[in-house]
Amino acid sequence: MPKRIEVCLTPALLHLYDVKDSIVVVIDILRATSSIVYGIANGASAIIPVANVEDCLQYSGQGYLLAAERNGEVVEGYDFGNSPFSYTAEKVAGKTVVLTTTNGTKALHMARETAYQVIIGSFLNLKSLCAWLKTQDRSVLLLCAGWKDAFNLEDTLFAGAVVSDLRKDFDHFDDSSIAAEDLYQLAKNDLRKYLHKSSHSHRLAALNIEEDVKFCLQLDICKAIPVLIGDTLIALETD
Amino acid sequence: MPKRIEVCLTPALLHLYDVKDSIVVVIDILRATSSIVYGIANGASAIIPVANVEDCLQYSGQGYLLAAERNGEVVEGYDFGNSPFSYTAEKVAGKTVVLTTTNGTKALHMARETAYQVIIGSFLNLKSLCAWLKTQDRSVLLLCAGWKDAFNLEDTLFAGAVVSDLRKDFDHFDDSSIAAEDLYQLAKNDLRKYLHKSSHSHRLAALNIEEDVKFCLQLDICKAIPVLIGDTLIALETD
Repeated sequence: MPKRIEVCLTPALLHLYDVKDSIVVVIDILRATSSIVYGIANGASAIIPVANVEDCLQYSGQGYLLAAERNGEVVEGYDFGNSPFSYTAEKVAGKTVVLTTTNGTKALHMARETAYQVIIGSFLNLKSLCAWLKTQDRSVLLLCAGWKDAFNLEDTLFAGAVVSDLRKDFDHFDDSSIAAEDLYQLAKNDLRKYLHKSSHSHRLAALNIEEDVKFCLQLDICKAIPVLIGDTLIALETD
Repeated sequence: MPKRIEVCLTPALLHLYDVKDSIVVVIDILRATSSIVYGIANGASAIIPVANVEDCLQYSGQGYLLAAERNGEVVEGYDFGNSPFSYTAEKVAGKTVVLTTTNGTKALHMARETAYQVIIGSFLNLKSLCAWLKTQDRSVLLLCAGWKDAFNLEDTLFAGAVVSDLRKDFDHFDDSSIAAEDLYQLAKNDLRKYLHKSSHSHRLAALNIEEDVKFCLQLDICKAIPVLIGDTLIALETD
């Protein structure tokens, strides 16, 4: 069976894709999926993505770590937001984190409705993710979480990095995967510099998270691949 | 007032943009907006875009030329489809053409609902279009018609060509306009070669319209800028 790679540039376009037999990789580079990968790699037992701050609150007082971010900032009264620096082994090992974010959680919930399987991608686990996708006899949809349903550069660049790695092992590429790969080739020697052109970068600079951005653009510092089982993200068993 | 340029990569994302004070440029390079520009440049009195083949039929027997295309082919019984070679002065001068196409008409109708003004872009009138946009004290949304609501390369490349030309005269660029411009810079030395990578190119090759594609990628052979007045496209008075 021919293996397709497609890139869905924002969740608002997900309905155009038939993913019932495909693996969907959810991508929200700044910062949800980077933090999820880092947290699972650092021994978090599980991460539960929830749709909104109210849903998150229902888990309070039961031993969970609660993480809530809206518009890039930690919601008052929560343990942390989605800065990757909150997801160190000291903080999350053996714990379950309940997480709500602006864009990433929404994309995850949408993908779960229709996909064969949903996994999490970030630059932090790029190589490990691609190596595993090559072993699967499945088409792949790379789902960019975007920013409030709009296209963003950082998620698209990561999608392009995956396309680039998988090119020889897949048969069909849609127009958006071609565009994403070409943009990644342009940007790959200095991702940060490239992203400084972007609107999101200006927005995030205002939130003083330049260190987070630097962290999230590191390649291959983790091997873990989070997978969605029911409503919970856990480490995929890849052996 | 700061002037924004934004690129809406498919009509399915149009609801994300506030265009009530903006000029929307509708782009359907292969082939609707190329043919519309060529037809108006060749003296067509007007071109009426309609939503479907049935609407088109209501104009029959009243002296209009009827053009209908679905999935890239002329609908049986119509005068022509949307090959630009049908829009020569011999065929259209002094005539009104009623046109329905797969993607372009849909984008036009959507834009009309919300935009300050709707005009038509193609490589054929690129320079003239950009020169006029520079004289307007308005933000610009470049609306790619795409292919059945999905992203396509050729419309995005044209959007990038416009961004590139207008860069010095505008203040704010969204992520998709940055991406479109970079893709155009990659492709501009040989647009056809670049588009041979695309999925749409394969689809169109199957329809035997390689000559149309070549025609539609010519730069600046027309000066006309079609503008939508009510439900009708006519030549914009630019002087």
